[in-house]
Amino acid sequence: MRFLSFDQAGVETVGVRFGEELVDLSLAAPGLPRTLLGLIQADALEAAGRAARNAGGAARRPLAGTRYLPLIPRPPKFFGFGINYGSHVGERPKTPGFFISTHTRLIGHGDALVIPRISRTLDWEAELALVIRRPARGVPASRALDYIAGYTVFNDGSVRGHGVGMTLALQKNSDRTGPLGPELVTPDELPPGCDGLKLLCRRNGEVVQSDTTANMFWKVPEVIELSSSYMSFEPGDVITTGTCGGTIIDRYPGCDRTDESLPWLQPGDVLESEVEGVGILRNTIVAE
Amino acid sequence: MRFLSFDQAGVETVGVRFGEELVDLSLAAPGLPRTLLGLIQADALEAAGRAARNAGGAARRPLAGTRYLPLIPRPPKFFGFGINYGSHVGERPKTPGFFISTHTRLIGHGDALVIPRISRTLDWEAELALVIRRPARGVPASRALDYIAGYTVFNDGSVRGHGVGMTLALQKNSDRTGPLGPELVTPDELPPGCDGLKLLCRRNGEVVQSDTTANMFWKVPEVIELSSSYMSFEPGDVITTGTCGGTIIDRYPGCDRTDESLPWLQPGDVLESEVEGVGILRNTIVAE
Repeated sequence: MRFLSFDQAGVETVGVRFGEELVDLSLAAPGLPRTLLGLIQADALEAAGRAARNAGGAARRPLAGTRYLPLIPRPPKFFGFGINYGSHVGERPKTPGFFISTHTRLIGHGDALVIPRISRTLDWEAELALVIRRPARGVPASRALDYIAGYTVFNDGSVRGHGVGMTLALQKNSDRTGPLGPELVTPDELPPGCDGLKLLCRRNGEVVQSDTTANMFWKVPEVIELSSSYMSFEPGDVITTGTCGGTIIDRYPGCDRTDESLPWLQPGDVLESEVEGVGILRNTIVAE
Repeated sequence: MRFLSFDQAGVETVGVRFGEELVDLSLAAPGLPRTLLGLIQADALEAAGRAARNAGGAARRPLAGTRYLPLIPRPPKFFGFGINYGSHVGERPKTPGFFISTHTRLIGHGDALVIPRISRTLDWEAELALVIRRPARGVPASRALDYIAGYTVFNDGSVRGHGVGMTLALQKNSDRTGPLGPELVTPDELPPGCDGLKLLCRRNGEVVQSDTTANMFWKVPEVIELSSSYMSFEPGDVITTGTCGGTIIDRYPGCDRTDESLPWLQPGDVLESEVEGVGILRNTIVAE
């Protein structure tokens, strides 16, 4: 099942896609929560899926023209798990990296992705993301897949000029730099833990990142085990799983990250972030 | 005016304190939002204050026995501004440090503060915190004080064993390590920008941190100017302003932060975090 969040006259609405058709769950299942986060919190994804399959014509419409919202516009927590592909960071480190993002960076499929005025050093980072289904703390890898509501795609658009360390929080939190979506794909439609899926990023049609989730140092079960060893998670939380090689800082190792003359994302660029079978996020770049 | 969030039979409720008495706003102002975040989002703090002053006896009760909640249990954003006192970090750096926290670390005045099992290296960091009143992006320092709903106290309980850099997000996000409160004090009760107030932390009655907000490298107006130059803020967001010297890592410079034999917080310790005129947060330490 493929859930998405869309804008309907200013109201966040959840729908299910079937091919080129969208079922509006506010019509097909009026007794259920009206947002994807609400459905996940109510453990009602399966009920919503049944209602979508049985929906009559009044709840169906062409997908074309849908204005996507960030898959979950305000996740209770957005936890970034990184340093997870050899093609991006070289050898496997002792521990991965972590960051927290906030809702003000999130955008939807089709939204403009914004280069901030303060540092025009915006880099791409296509990633697989997962959404938590039930409260999770100290979850062993062997049971971790039971805690996943579904998977989606993220691009962790990173403002490199802010450096690292104490300013990583800025790199990863510039307004409207984080497309999330287009859809939540339930685990039954994908291989366990999304293992072995192609991860791609295209800039103006040219492939700039290409790897497979089979190369993650910490695969999805271990991502959940490790993350939940540090803090609590709840339904609707998003965890991202790191990007692969091919970013600007991979292409210019040791570069001055504040150098605006490097080939960072430029206004008008079209960025496509893809995880095989999960979806393709398409965003056009604008300057603040 | 001094607003607080308290637990009433499992329901988050907002009240106003007058001396040793608490006015329950769910009774004194039933037409207003029932939470402090709701009041701030509705720009209704002044209306709530008037209702509290005029409240009859039925809405008044003794403060004693109040079970405090985190001042705002789920702020839309919790933004940490740090590296802001010479007594903690030495010379003024070119830029401050930043981190993002999430709601799962927040606790109230009187709640137990938790040493995590995974690293028993919990350090104290008393701080002044502020709560945003209106949408803020690119706010100049000269107008910044207009964007503040009020001030409170925070202890940024930090799990040092997680190191710095890519793991700063873990140091600052362990469950139940961040007391926030006890009260939101409106700016009319305090000097402009809370400048020149004593900042103190006591461990089992002994003063372990002592400085003044007059020594902040970036004072409150500049904290807002700089923070809002990086990202958007909205009503109810919390910004913390950094801690002063006197933490364990100040006392043992260059120490191995994973060394559990250092005098980190221990179960049974009582921690008091104070900003003069703003409040005193008291929390007892427990081990997970």
